[in-house]
Amino acid sequence: MDPYKTLREEAWEANMEIPARRLAIYTWGNVSALDREKGVFAIKPSGVAYDDLTPDSMVVVDLDGAVVDGTLNPSSDTETHRVLYREFPGVNGITHTHSTYAAAWAQARRSVPVFGTTHADHGAEYIPCTPVMDEDAVRNNYELETGNLIVKTFREAKKDPALMPMALVAGHGPFAWGENAARSVYHAAVLEEVCKMALLTLTLDPRAAPLPEHIIRKHWERKHGPDAYYGQR
Amino acid sequence: MDPYKTLREEAWEANMEIPARRLAIYTWGNVSALDREKGVFAIKPSGVAYDDLTPDSMVVVDLDGAVVDGTLNPSSDTETHRVLYREFPGVNGITHTHSTYAAAWAQARRSVPVFGTTHADHGAEYIPCTPVMDEDAVRNNYELETGNLIVKTFREAKKDPALMPMALVAGHGPFAWGENAARSVYHAAVLEEVCKMALLTLTLDPRAAPLPEHIIRKHWERKHGPDAYYGQR
Amino acid sequence: MDPYKTLREEAWEANMEIPARRLAIYTWGNVSALDREKGVFAIKPSGVAYDDLTPDSMVVVDLDGAVVDGTLNPSSDTETHRVLYREFPGVNGITHTHSTYAAAWAQARRSVPVFGTTHADHGAEYIPCTPVMDEDAVRNNYELETGNLIVKTFREAKKDPALMPMALVAGHGPFAWGENAARSVYHAAVLEEVCKMALLTLTLDPRAAPLPEHIIRKHWERKHGPDAYYGQR
Amino acid sequence: MDPYKTLREEAWEANMEIPARRLAIYTWGNVSALDREKGVFAIKPSGVAYDDLTPDSMVVVDLDGAVVDGTLNPSSDTETHRVLYREFPGVNGITHTHSTYAAAWAQARRSVPVFGTTHADHGAEYIPCTPVMDEDAVRNNYELETGNLIVKTFREAKKDPALMPMALVAGHGPFAWGENAARSVYHAAVLEEVCKMALLTLTLDPRAAPLPEHIIRKHWERKHGPDAYYGQR
Repeated sequence: MDPYKTLREEAWEANMEIPARRLAIYTWGNVSALDREKGVFAIKPSGVAYDDLTPDSMVVVDLDGAVVDGTLNPSSDTETHRVLYREFPGVNGITHTHSTYAAAWAQARRSVPVFGTTHADHGAEYIPCTPVMDEDAVRNNYELETGNLIVKTFREAKKDPALMPMALVAGHGPFAWGENAARSVYHAAVLEEVCKMALLTLTLDPRAAPLPEHIIRKHWERKHGPDAYYGQR
Repeated sequence: MDPYKTLREEAWEANMEIPARRLAIYTWGNVSALDREKGVFAIKPSGVAYDDLTPDSMVVVDLDGAVVDGTLNPSSDTETHRVLYREFPGVNGITHTHSTYAAAWAQARRSVPVFGTTHADHGAEYIPCTPVMDEDAVRNNYELETGNLIVKTFREAKKDPALMPMALVAGHGPFAWGENAARSVYHAAVLEEVCKMALLTLTLDPRAAPLPEHIIRKHWERKHGPDAYYGQR
Repeated sequence: MDPYKTLREEAWEANMEIPARRLAIYTWGNVSALDREKGVFAIKPSGVAYDDLTPDSMVVVDLDGAVVDGTLNPSSDTETHRVLYREFPGVNGITHTHSTYAAAWAQARRSVPVFGTTHADHGAEYIPCTPVMDEDAVRNNYELETGNLIVKTFREAKKDPALMPMALVAGHGPFAWGENAARSVYHAAVLEEVCKMALLTLTLDPRAAPLPEHIIRKHWERKHGPDAYYGQR
Repeated sequence: MDPYKTLREEAWEANMEIPARRLAIYTWGNVSALDREKGVFAIKPSGVAYDDLTPDSMVVVDLDGAVVDGTLNPSSDTETHRVLYREFPGVNGITHTHSTYAAAWAQARRSVPVFGTTHADHGAEYIPCTPVMDEDAVRNNYELETGNLIVKTFREAKKDPALMPMALVAGHGPFAWGENAARSVYHAAVLEEVCKMALLTLTLDPRAAPLPEHIIRKHWERKHGPDAYYGQR
């Protein structure tokens, strides 16, 4: 009996959404699923094509970074996932991709303003882009420092990762998270679509104004506030 | 026997065109179908994925906003549909999406000029974008006021909703309508394509001129005028 | 026995390439196939969806514009096809679409410069855009005058329709032709791809220079010149 | 028994990736696979549609340019492949396409800066664009001189084709290579995606800065350096 069977299946299913939603080509994206009680997460093995993935091939890693179960190497981005799980309470799923429009914003090193309700439905604030990582951090432990950079960007901007489940790492690409793995890959798909809409908005008006605060709040609240009325409750 | 069976099927079929035509991802769009004699419309339930929709899951609502039949919550945009049905005679189907290019125009808060015959074939005038909703209206009843904003924009511009079946809500996205639900989702797909063509036109020439009135009229008349000769009659 | 069976099948097969190559949505494109000996062409019926087309539904029209065989109304663009067949010898297939990038160039009223070999492989010159049609011509016979406008544009620019099988009608969209119907829809697909590449080229460099004449000639000659060596001969 | 069976199958499989990855429409791309011991390569026949390709239809050519086996004409670009195999040691697969975004960069005659890690993962330097070929070279032997132009561009910029497996030929399109045919078409797909991301980056910031050298190095080294740790080793 595999004690991580459910966790592996959750991680595998969410990883398979990456090609299904066209969020990365080849092996350029990974999802992990965390079991907070057990203190372990299941993550995609490094460099394996999605067509070759199975639930069994998911690698189980603990929050100190040790491989607990699995025969393959975990994703090279495992340390980034680990830092985010340690620092962001309530986050139980993380997705990293190289989706095209989100990568373009990351490469332009621009945070994404809230131009419309599609964005506000999923986060009541701009989507932050980190600064470019300095040479010491890269030399120290690149993937762990990528996690630290996201965490520091959120702390300095007083952003709550529960209210803004998406980030861009400058010159690299997007990370997204959620209360489970499926939700994190949903946010990765939202991020790509929001980034495409925002780029096209700037094409139509390079000085486009963000949505006023009262509409941002309204859209956030109707989906996520105490009196939310979107969906089936 | 379900007295709303036909209406539900009409609404369901039109909702399924949203993913088929790639007009929205996940649950980000809804269609309704009105029976003017009975004074009720069938609409997509809120937050349900298209793959999970069935004709039976459509919610039947009357023109006073009361749920008449159905076990799920209706779309959170139901009040917008209701206002448009009450104010726009001849409209028996309404579609709302977050399609990418139409959302970009809405986010840039620009009306779409008639740059070509693809547009003129479906409306002899520019596609209007509403102003941004003010704080009082948002606080009062956001979705109902979204409908009022569209109606007011049409009245002030002396636009006839029978001649221009599409609108953009500033900072939000597109609404389209027609003589039935299928026609409304057709217009939503037209709107997305026209918005894409118009953005690309401006990329090639930021000062592109609208089509002259005599060609706009000709294209409109050959499809919709008293002597229309397009199609099989 | 249907004496036009082969011609209808040729026209039908080419029409089915329009949705397969994504050159138009709904019913927004039409192909015809000409039999020069019989002096008739088979063309798509007006306003019929591609999924509902059959070879039998193609309408046979003679070069004076009379319907010779078929129960449906021919495409509303039939007169444009007819003019081109009469004026352009060697052309036995014509395709009209509203493909997105070609329509954008037509709406921007710009001819497409030869920026690269993809273009030069299919025409050794810029792709011309007509002027906007004047009011008298529209009033007289719009579709016939659309054909005349293309012919006049080619004559005035001393362009040979055998060497440049593509044209843009200002504010409207693309027409393409060839020695048979299949070749005309091939050229319509080429035109869309060339228009997309050219727009992206201008995005990277608004003052991009055309390909020098010696490379244009080389690419044209290796495919179409007397010593052509591309393909299997 | 066909002594080139394996080589032909390798070439055929890689050619079939061109339509699967949407790197070219119709016949606009070709892949070859080299057997360095035998001194021959298998290449796509000229002008044949991908749907009609079989392993048997691949043409076997030696490094002096003579057809060794096969009944069809080899790709018109065969001489370009031959030059690259002779001049670039370690390269055993070559892909040429007219993929849309890579062609746009080639038409704009711009090299592609390293804007992000997606690029750095596959090459630690900018992707070079050759100069435009002069008239004498075109007249001499166009396809052979295309190969020479790529080789000269790499030599003058002191670029190592093992470290940068992609090039743009000005006014024409992309070439990519690798240690085998599958790897070369992988690099052709990477090139298209990197070109799309880079164009969108410049749309967001026309003066976007390249990634700093310490991050470029890190990403290259973690995948290709002596202590590489990406993937399963």
